[in-house]
Amino acid sequence: VTVWLVGAGPGDPGLITAKGLELVRACEALVYDVLVAPELVAEAPEDALLIPREKLKQTEIDALLVELGSRGLDVVRLKGGDPFVFGRGGEEAHALAEAGVPFEVVPGVSALSAVPASAGIPVTHRGVSAQVTLVSGHSASGEALDYEHLARTPGTLVVFMGLSHLPEIVAGLVAAGQDAETPAAVVSNGTRPDGQSVTGTLGEIATLVDGLISPALLVVGDVVGVAAELATVAADAQALLA
Amino acid sequence: VTVWLVGAGPGDPGLITAKGLELVRACEALVYDVLVAPELVAEAPEDALLIPREKLKQTEIDALLVELGSRGLDVVRLKGGDPFVFGRGGEEAHALAEAGVPFEVVPGVSALSAVPASAGIPVTHRGVSAQVTLVSGHSASGEALDYEHLARTPGTLVVFMGLSHLPEIVAGLVAAGQDAETPAAVVSNGTRPDGQSVTGTLGEIATLVDGLISPALLVVGDVVGVAAELATVAADAQALLA
Repeated sequence: VTVWLVGAGPGDPGLITAKGLELVRACEALVYDVLVAPELVAEAPEDALLIPREKLKQTEIDALLVELGSRGLDVVRLKGGDPFVFGRGGEEAHALAEAGVPFEVVPGVSALSAVPASAGIPVTHRGVSAQVTLVSGHSASGEALDYEHLARTPGTLVVFMGLSHLPEIVAGLVAAGQDAETPAAVVSNGTRPDGQSVTGTLGEIATLVDGLISPALLVVGDVVGVAAELATVAADAQALLA
Repeated sequence: VTVWLVGAGPGDPGLITAKGLELVRACEALVYDVLVAPELVAEAPEDALLIPREKLKQTEIDALLVELGSRGLDVVRLKGGDPFVFGRGGEEAHALAEAGVPFEVVPGVSALSAVPASAGIPVTHRGVSAQVTLVSGHSASGEALDYEHLARTPGTLVVFMGLSHLPEIVAGLVAAGQDAETPAAVVSNGTRPDGQSVTGTLGEIATLVDGLISPALLVVGDVVGVAAELATVAADAQALLA
């Protein structure tokens, strides 16, 4: 292997995998996403080539990885979250395969569950949700969401998105028949020290995000209520113990 | 915090998070699932209390964590995959909250994407799939799957399951109208050295799993074809370079 497609996890640098961290510490070239924690970039060897992905188009990244890999360098391509969950890792894998450059994928913790967890929300919960649906609300994905279907999907809906798309996504779900009273949460910078979240009903959630910043993730479903219940139960217990 | 609910990742011990590994190495009590890699259990301090989850019911585990946590021990509850993705972490969190025991969740790499990745399958891929649906096919989850809805769901379907449920799940999807020609894969022990996978059509996949063992994961959707395409492209490139 010369190119490793490594998931950096959802934000907190401690959430990279042990294997991923080891590869970063031993690499000769590190190509990293803007959202990757600076603490992880700092783990690369002092003489490693450090290349931020910023400003490079996907095809340029693909070509860069092929070039570095063809030189026989130990290359780590460090991507936010998991390379294969809206990470475009498949495209980079394809470019490397086509060029005959050996590569391997090292999965990472996806924002999918880690970011809701940072707000106390389990995406599945016994008796509440036994299904998780994940879509991307970034217009960059080039595909409009199928609101008619999503509004009728049981369980938990998780949407990766920029905050600017939130009003349009909420309007789409409600117009397609999803109950505006469904619990919803937006989590911004989840798992990071500056992470913030708001909860409310789907109908009102877009009015509650003032001051939050991207990247953000929308969670829709009754599991949002589990977080509030856990907090209440814990507070009651603490009061009794005090 | 006295109790840490830590995701051990999908099987490969290298896929635990750096933070999770640090907690295991410093704990006073380790309560671990059967599917957690023995290499990770071996990372606990020599004098740590090691308690396999085997044979304990969920309510017994909950009570055990409360008891250990109430004693003020540094407890790591090490769970396969991610605690909040079909990991019943929410139930353990609830029991701890109710007892006034401080706890924290440390997410892990879910099998959701890591296990398909170990067979070369990206659960999302540009132009192929922009949606992932995750359900559990274990009868233990107590809920029958909504095949009518799942058969009409776009994108990639991932089913956590025991292999014994595979024929029933496939029959349910096909009876509900899902095209029997849809590409499908079953990945057994994904990310482990003894991992194996088979691919075929949805209609035939249940006949191809002889010799595979649980735990297993079913992937249904066109992304299964991406793995084959990557392999072909890589082989062609290698042949040209040789």
